[in-house]
Amino acid sequence: MTDRRTFLKKSVAAAAALASMPTLLEGCARPVQTPVSGGSLIVPKGMGLPITGTFLDEISHDIPHQNWGAKEWEQDFVYMKAIGIKDVIVIRCGHKKFITYPSPHLLQSGCYMPSVDLIELFCSLADKYDMNFWFGLYDSGVKYPEGAVLDMEHNKYVIEEVWTRYGHHKSFAGWYLSKEFSNKTDGMIEAYRILGKQCKELSGNLPTFISPYINGKKAVSAFNSKLGKAVGEDITLSEHERQWNEILDGIRGYVDACAFQDGHVDYDELDGFLTINKQLADRYGIESWTNAESFDRDMPIKFLPIKFDKLRLKLESARRCGYDKAITFEFSHFMSPQSAYLQAGHLYDRYAEYFGLNV
Amino acid sequence: MTDRRTFLKKSVAAAAALASMPTLLEGCARPVQTPVSGGSLIVPKGMGLPITGTFLDEISHDIPHQNWGAKEWEQDFVYMKAIGIKDVIVIRCGHKKFITYPSPHLLQSGCYMPSVDLIELFCSLADKYDMNFWFGLYDSGVKYPEGAVLDMEHNKYVIEEVWTRYGHHKSFAGWYLSKEFSNKTDGMIEAYRILGKQCKELSGNLPTFISPYINGKKAVSAFNSKLGKAVGEDITLSEHERQWNEILDGIRGYVDACAFQDGHVDYDELDGFLTINKQLADRYGIESWTNAESFDRDMPIKFLPIKFDKLRLKLESARRCGYDKAITFEFSHFMSPQSAYLQAGHLYDRYAEYFGLNV
Amino acid sequence: MTDRRTFLKKSVAAAAALASMPTLLEGCARPVQTPVSGGSLIVPKGMGLPITGTFLDEISHDIPHQNWGAKEWEQDFVYMKAIGIKDVIVIRCGHKKFITYPSPHLLQSGCYMPSVDLIELFCSLADKYDMNFWFGLYDSGVKYPEGAVLDMEHNKYVIEEVWTRYGHHKSFAGWYLSKEFSNKTDGMIEAYRILGKQCKELSGNLPTFISPYINGKKAVSAFNSKLGKAVGEDITLSEHERQWNEILDGIRGYVDACAFQDGHVDYDELDGFLTINKQLADRYGIESWTNAESFDRDMPIKFLPIKFDKLRLKLESARRCGYDKAITFEFSHFMSPQSAYLQAGHLYDRYAEYFGLNV
Repeated sequence: MTDRRTFLKKSVAAAAALASMPTLLEGCARPVQTPVSGGSLIVPKGMGLPITGTFLDEISHDIPHQNWGAKEWEQDFVYMKAIGIKDVIVIRCGHKKFITYPSPHLLQSGCYMPSVDLIELFCSLADKYDMNFWFGLYDSGVKYPEGAVLDMEHNKYVIEEVWTRYGHHKSFAGWYLSKEFSNKTDGMIEAYRILGKQCKELSGNLPTFISPYINGKKAVSAFNSKLGKAVGEDITLSEHERQWNEILDGIRGYVDACAFQDGHVDYDELDGFLTINKQLADRYGIESWTNAESFDRDMPIKFLPIKFDKLRLKLESARRCGYDKAITFEFSHFMSPQSAYLQAGHLYDRYAEYFGLNV
Repeated sequence: MTDRRTFLKKSVAAAAALASMPTLLEGCARPVQTPVSGGSLIVPKGMGLPITGTFLDEISHDIPHQNWGAKEWEQDFVYMKAIGIKDVIVIRCGHKKFITYPSPHLLQSGCYMPSVDLIELFCSLADKYDMNFWFGLYDSGVKYPEGAVLDMEHNKYVIEEVWTRYGHHKSFAGWYLSKEFSNKTDGMIEAYRILGKQCKELSGNLPTFISPYINGKKAVSAFNSKLGKAVGEDITLSEHERQWNEILDGIRGYVDACAFQDGHVDYDELDGFLTINKQLADRYGIESWTNAESFDRDMPIKFLPIKFDKLRLKLESARRCGYDKAITFEFSHFMSPQSAYLQAGHLYDRYAEYFGLNV
Repeated sequence: MTDRRTFLKKSVAAAAALASMPTLLEGCARPVQTPVSGGSLIVPKGMGLPITGTFLDEISHDIPHQNWGAKEWEQDFVYMKAIGIKDVIVIRCGHKKFITYPSPHLLQSGCYMPSVDLIELFCSLADKYDMNFWFGLYDSGVKYPEGAVLDMEHNKYVIEEVWTRYGHHKSFAGWYLSKEFSNKTDGMIEAYRILGKQCKELSGNLPTFISPYINGKKAVSAFNSKLGKAVGEDITLSEHERQWNEILDGIRGYVDACAFQDGHVDYDELDGFLTINKQLADRYGIESWTNAESFDRDMPIKFLPIKFDKLRLKLESARRCGYDKAITFEFSHFMSPQSAYLQAGHLYDRYAEYFGLNV
């Protein structure tokens, strides 16, 4: 059986072969694409901070799975590399009962056996394409403070297992402490400290990072139809600053970078929050990355690829605010030319055009 | 890097070139498509009113953006033209802070700079493909009556700007007063009158139109999961008639056509509402168009392309009721062969088949 | 006009033709797909119960329509057959006012005329590809017990009509009593008995089946954003057993197989429910099938294709519990290489890989 994707692959071969043949396109129904006015960029190119890292959204939690095999994953690494992505971060190695590698500890704890060892696959691909692999810790899915006990207990084993199984990969570059918070929550500082410490000590001080979110007006559940909070329910800049000052103070030394998600506040509120967040991080010797979300939080369908101009506004803000690095959640669903969401491939093109990349 | 869309384009070249070569398809895995019974239409062909216009859904408000560049937009105009679309209507030139062209006034008012001048692009494409371009006014996104003040104030400048910048295009054919209402609302009649008057006076009386909706059983927010009102909450035909008699009386002379959205009542309620709406419009010398929605309001995913038979029922109703013109919201997401929603391309095929178009 | 799907078809021709030409692929931008570690299955292959049947989701009720014509349907039957599907079941011949064939009775009752006779199309395709066609009865969409009266009344005519019109097809293999229940409901036993009896008597005792669901923690409406019940609101195993013992006792003799939907309980609760359901069915001489849902109930978008590992877990459970047959809801949206949801084609590939099918 020949399916859609095989057709595509074959048609590349056909097209390449035909490149050397005289064209026979006269009479073809497709229009000749002559330039019309209005098609070119009217903003300065490349003024945003380029995205050089992406999460890999395994385990799927709120974004439907693409069911890719090794072939599609390899193709995706090639697509990533072509637009300058160097860091790939497994967002979490497990969530509740679904896991990404056959962890003896987690299987014993009742998790389901995965059909593929995705961590081995991602490390191998990162080796092959000279990229950096970051490992995201297990997330019990339980709210803190109760969840803190579970996350610390399980990850004690997971970190050991993973370092033993995959630490030899030349691409293994660091750790992602995967639990996401917007506010100071009981148990979070201790969990970050203990887990960060264990990761770093075991791996010869490889870096760690976190990716919190701002409790802004768009900080609502992915699992209901609301897109925003009621007026006044979002956090103020000063309360955000107060809480995160305390948090970052508490975790310094164990967390090397902080990549706030950029999608929970309005586009023109970003400068304010990015500035505060960088000041705080600078104060405690933590690098400031931005997690530029490439999905659209403003639409009834949760979630499809973001409109390019929204992503551009956010990356411009990050550059204006002096950020060190931009990563995204995430390339494979929302920016990849082979994404099941075809808007993603067009976002890839718009992104490349804006940054002057020849892809 | 060669992406999916480039593959497709190249494969057309390949296929065209190979059309003159002996076939080598023996043994191919795809089935020979011999006719089976049950595959042909059992309804009279072409009894619906053909769609000859479409909105262009920029600025994206509740439909996720496709991230098309000039190439895809041009292709889409070609696809439109092939099925008989002559009118393209930018649904609104701006919504809240997102805008479609670099409006000095709106930028000064805090709107975001767009990366492309879409109005120039759409006018140029309409020029090139001999289509009519309609300009949709700015929508503050604020509820009336408060919003009326904002919409009138901003559009006073926008209309001037747009006529100066784009009025020279041979395709510039008219204006769309973009605010949508279902009921008589304070401020609406005045806003329509003032804006309609300004548009017409400035442009040598180019036509204007509006596209209200019926407060029917499916008139619910796009931003929650409800698909219908509670029983008895929808408007009655007589109350609808009473209100719209007053509205149309109030705006006659400033609005040349009224294109009610056809998706908020049940398929077998349409004849009743279309008949009343036409009687009212006739009374005040206003043309009756139908805005045949090509997305499906009956499904949990808000919104994907409509099932062809639903569109057909609506277009048949419009023709039965003697309507002048059918436009759709909208071609590019819901009917285009290059839509990110592949159901749209199949709707294009079904539509063409029903109307006997050779596309 | 040449659309996406025509491109694809043409490119197959191009690719096939070029298979006999010297390759000119040197320098192509796509990576050579050399194997990397981590890409192969780490679970035993084929331990799940293979899927040998699928619903055909006409009439569309909560899954957006794909707008396929005869060509796409034929292609889909070929795709189905290639992975071992032998049974195709029209989920319902009509739902409320939308119907799949021009039923004189239902048209007289106010249903809308369909543009194609889908039952004739599906029977013809099943004939051609040597598959079994099952006919799903009309569903009034009205809750029982009121709906029971309607369903019995309408289907009295529908069953007659259908047997007269389509009973001659060699593929016509049985009947699906389409109303879905999770709990004992007034009117359901009587409706199943009466309808099952009529179907069997008229057709020379062709088999009938039902596909209920478990009132488990994921048994919530498709039409709101909730994904699960509150804790403790799901049915207990023993209450489920008590109710279904009574139901199956009541319908034995008139229903030959029972295919519980497998998506409303957690993956590790399935063994418990599948075991009970089989014991009950065995007690009353009813075959046990599983309706392995191929869409994902855990995601905010309702509904996209399921993650392969979830489907695998469910099929492994069904085989462990000794089930007779697995069918799925449904192939064309969620597993087909030509689905509008591209994740489906990848699920097809993963499924084929796991079962060692060469497609």
